[in-house]
Amino acid sequence: MKYPKALENLIKSFQLYPGIGPKTAERLAFYTFLELKDEEVADFSANLLRIKKELKHCSNCGVITDRETCEICTDSDRENKLLVVEGTKDVNVFEKIGHYYGKYHVLNGLISPLNGVGPDDINIQNILKRVDDEKIEEIIVATSATIEGEMTALYIKNSLENKNIKVYRIGYGLPAGGDIEYADEMTLIKALEGRKEL
Amino acid sequence: MKYPKALENLIKSFQLYPGIGPKTAERLAFYTFLELKDEEVADFSANLLRIKKELKHCSNCGVITDRETCEICTDSDRENKLLVVEGTKDVNVFEKIGHYYGKYHVLNGLISPLNGVGPDDINIQNILKRVDDEKIEEIIVATSATIEGEMTALYIKNSLENKNIKVYRIGYGLPAGGDIEYADEMTLIKALEGRKEL
Repeated sequence: MKYPKALENLIKSFQLYPGIGPKTAERLAFYTFLELKDEEVADFSANLLRIKKELKHCSNCGVITDRETCEICTDSDRENKLLVVEGTKDVNVFEKIGHYYGKYHVLNGLISPLNGVGPDDINIQNILKRVDDEKIEEIIVATSATIEGEMTALYIKNSLENKNIKVYRIGYGLPAGGDIEYADEMTLIKALEGRKEL
Repeated sequence: MKYPKALENLIKSFQLYPGIGPKTAERLAFYTFLELKDEEVADFSANLLRIKKELKHCSNCGVITDRETCEICTDSDRENKLLVVEGTKDVNVFEKIGHYYGKYHVLNGLISPLNGVGPDDINIQNILKRVDDEKIEEIIVATSATIEGEMTALYIKNSLENKNIKVYRIGYGLPAGGDIEYADEMTLIKALEGRKEL
């Protein structure tokens, strides 16, 4: 005996996601049938369709949006700075803090030769165009502190060499509340390099 | 800034499931937009709707099925035994082993006074009717080895007191490959009680 076709199909759909194995997918499909209300399932179904219909990448900065050009790109009050990040989630993280008033540039990936991702596979070339068009005065590259993140930051710095513009890398070091004892070697090296006068 | 409405809505839908918190829901919604193909999302959406339209509980045994009465209940080759289990998944587990050739009865829950679940809230009364209608000769209660499982088993045994029928509880003890050293106390007590002559 197998489960009814409809149940098997839903289990397969859940398994499309990374981190959801057969057991979890089964649990989620059962929960859908046994515990969720009809309206909740109908909404879930509709929300899935809407996401592919309504969302796109902002034609200017690359963030996920439901407009042609996103709210931030069309906001004339923003400072002429670019915070370059890997994905849309990072934009959200910085916007939540409310300490940065410039614009963003979302790469939607990082350069990774091992995975066959080159500079042309991510949203990197448009930075140069934006620097001119939007009179950008400062760029902060806030990619993560991994090999791919460093490589991407370096590539961006090099491609902006001929422009008269400040390019920064976001600061690295001990996280707030971080304990020296438990910090890893690379974090400590970065923290020493990033020392500030008291 | 918040995410676009369509994205926020999908994140909320994923959060309906137990074990899926805000961070995981966000990750799944992003994955839906960024990595899944249009057809995969359309299928997922359709599969969600189908599950509520096509599935029901078998009117006889309570298993999840897409028929009025399930395949097993309508299978005349099955022995006149009932294996009483908590849910549809358990039926699948026993069917996979292929060592049991009787019928099933799915309770869709366990008696649990603490959670306000009484005997009438689960599929328990129909067992008595089935015993007569289907000339059942033997009942094995295979609920889990928890307080609720034991309580439910006891209730079923008591309600069948007047019938001339054998009621068994599934065997408990050391699991196959189990190490005495690491077994918990209750398992060892059950294993001693369930000893067999060599």
